[in-house]
Amino acid sequence: MTAISPLAPKSFPDLPPVAGLDVRAFAAGLRYQGRPDLMLAVLPEGSTVGGVFTQSACASGPVEWCQQILPAGTARAVVCNAGNANAFTGSSGAASVQVEVDTLSAALGVPANEIFVASTGVIGEPLDDDAMVTALGQLVAADPVMWDVAAKAITTTDTFTKGAAADVPGGNVVGIAKGSGMIAPNMATMLGFLFTDIAATSEALQLAVAQATAESFNRITVDSDTSTSDTVLLFSTGQAGTDPIDGPNHAGWGEFSAAVFEVCLDLAHQIVRDGEGATKFIEVRVEEATDDDAAEKIARSIADSPLVKTAMAAEDANWGRIIMAIGKAGQPADRDKLAIWIGDEQVTADGLVHPDYSEDRANEFLTQDEIVVRVDMGLGDGSASVWTCDLTHGYIEINAGYRS
Amino acid sequence: MTAISPLAPKSFPDLPPVAGLDVRAFAAGLRYQGRPDLMLAVLPEGSTVGGVFTQSACASGPVEWCQQILPAGTARAVVCNAGNANAFTGSSGAASVQVEVDTLSAALGVPANEIFVASTGVIGEPLDDDAMVTALGQLVAADPVMWDVAAKAITTTDTFTKGAAADVPGGNVVGIAKGSGMIAPNMATMLGFLFTDIAATSEALQLAVAQATAESFNRITVDSDTSTSDTVLLFSTGQAGTDPIDGPNHAGWGEFSAAVFEVCLDLAHQIVRDGEGATKFIEVRVEEATDDDAAEKIARSIADSPLVKTAMAAEDANWGRIIMAIGKAGQPADRDKLAIWIGDEQVTADGLVHPDYSEDRANEFLTQDEIVVRVDMGLGDGSASVWTCDLTHGYIEINAGYRS
Repeated sequence: MTAISPLAPKSFPDLPPVAGLDVRAFAAGLRYQGRPDLMLAVLPEGSTVGGVFTQSACASGPVEWCQQILPAGTARAVVCNAGNANAFTGSSGAASVQVEVDTLSAALGVPANEIFVASTGVIGEPLDDDAMVTALGQLVAADPVMWDVAAKAITTTDTFTKGAAADVPGGNVVGIAKGSGMIAPNMATMLGFLFTDIAATSEALQLAVAQATAESFNRITVDSDTSTSDTVLLFSTGQAGTDPIDGPNHAGWGEFSAAVFEVCLDLAHQIVRDGEGATKFIEVRVEEATDDDAAEKIARSIADSPLVKTAMAAEDANWGRIIMAIGKAGQPADRDKLAIWIGDEQVTADGLVHPDYSEDRANEFLTQDEIVVRVDMGLGDGSASVWTCDLTHGYIEINAGYRS
Repeated sequence: MTAISPLAPKSFPDLPPVAGLDVRAFAAGLRYQGRPDLMLAVLPEGSTVGGVFTQSACASGPVEWCQQILPAGTARAVVCNAGNANAFTGSSGAASVQVEVDTLSAALGVPANEIFVASTGVIGEPLDDDAMVTALGQLVAADPVMWDVAAKAITTTDTFTKGAAADVPGGNVVGIAKGSGMIAPNMATMLGFLFTDIAATSEALQLAVAQATAESFNRITVDSDTSTSDTVLLFSTGQAGTDPIDGPNHAGWGEFSAAVFEVCLDLAHQIVRDGEGATKFIEVRVEEATDDDAAEKIARSIADSPLVKTAMAAEDANWGRIIMAIGKAGQPADRDKLAIWIGDEQVTADGLVHPDYSEDRANEFLTQDEIVVRVDMGLGDGSASVWTCDLTHGYIEINAGYRS
């Protein structure tokens, strides 16, 4: 087993129950032994859902299924297996999803097209439908579990389980996630499942999860690679007894959407903290770009640069590499207006190194395990943050040796 | 010193002289000791030039100078120093370039605005103008050198010197280049200087070098990072006595442009072979994409993927990562029409693993130090190749430890 990431939180957080939600897990041994590998959350009648998925042109069977049933906006269950992504499995991929939802539909007495499915693990191996049917029967019969067990059941190469929660007046939002690379080896994927008891229409959930994902899960990068199975779903049981939130004009929208964002951002940061081989958690903050989109592209260019990430690993304030990454981002930049900070140390001003810059002080910031690189473009009011980790021998070790 | 890349050619090639060209080099000791670090090529009156430069928004002073004088299309000299890129040096960067060209203009008796300048090395350190003026005086007075010495003088972290030539009826095209990453650490840059004695207008040279670069230097990737100083220049002395080529309708265009491309592609491949930490030379070939542009983007997505590159380093036919990289390229793809080959081994067909696929045979191809990954999209007639190298501990070693 891989050691727990040095950037992991001290422990799994205390997460509250979500009214009306029934969460189960089971160690089916489909690929992993001695740990839960199947998770099922059963939702009461009237539950609603919103979701976002991978942009990959080679999306998996489960992703295609979820995209197909999502527009109806109602949900009665979500099931996830770890160990096999059911991705690039041709027509058998869709058939396996159908077997799963038909099995659960019969066992739970809920419509098949209100059952969401996620799979994570090896790409290109068909699911064993018979084994899955047996396992799902055992999963449905299993006792309810606490969040930490459910969170464990959806992990693959993760070195720790990931959960987060936020309060909302009258209820809460709880989420679990998995991921340790944009794609963890050929064990695909970042998955996030959020649940709330706050009543909300599917349209409101869709907007909340899309907005939150745009500035959380979509703002992290470990290796710039994108999975075929990325999925984030937000379910509402509506059992808090609150007035249903129907969109941004509702009085409860502000606090609710903020809670969804808080949970997504917390989970997203945990995924970066579990980045393969990571020893540093890095925020790249770009300000005063021509607009937010330019700021994001510049921040991403820096956060994705192997040269920047290896310098961070070496605790070397090699700021020429940051200049390089800004330059290659394809966004408006004026060399003479750029200002760069490593931690609190200002590195550049007026198109050259800052007169008071001290490389020793900059390197001192880099010895910490949480680093902020800030770039002021001096051009407008666009800003964005992207979070990443350093690039180490550990990344090569994990990815050059993983599958075989 | 770093060991010579295992992918290096056996020796520097025999390169012919170019009629009318005078090439000099000098060990000025501006940064490196005991090796030439300044190169000067002096061209006869009437020489013409074309060139292409980095797309970086933070281009260096020398790049900005060359962009400014290139439109006139005439050239009398090109000078290059290794060790200091004169990049991100603010207003002093442009002033230093002016000092260089004024010094050479006086010493050579040629117009300053026909002297091209390239610099490669550390970013962010101003040039020492006094030392440079002295060194340029010594360079002008130095004896002419062979191509291998000139090629050595423009290198930084390169582990071998790079040169190539091609014959054209009545003359030849000769080129030298440097580079061992898209950007070698904060020692920036890929540089290429090509010389021909075939007479050609600056417009014809511009077209030839732009077309050749698009499918050679712009089709290689080591780490997806882009330098602030990338420069490719093609000079013609016009001394071969051939009828001046004035564009694609000229009878000599086909053979001439093919020779320019041959030299560029040879040099580009040598740069990949010197990729930091490289142990495998990899061609990613995409065919039957919707168009050439889509094919290039897909090939680049595969060639840039850290997960694909670490799998190649491990000699592991982890084809799920190739699917992932195709999927994230943002180009039209149909999972069920894709076919992938590793070497001669067909991996996928009809949206799943090929029935005759043998992982042992695929891994056998990966034990070689030259690998071809071929993808047939099954959608149209677009095709492209991108060349890259594997991602190894050596890359981390070099880039996490370089500057300090």
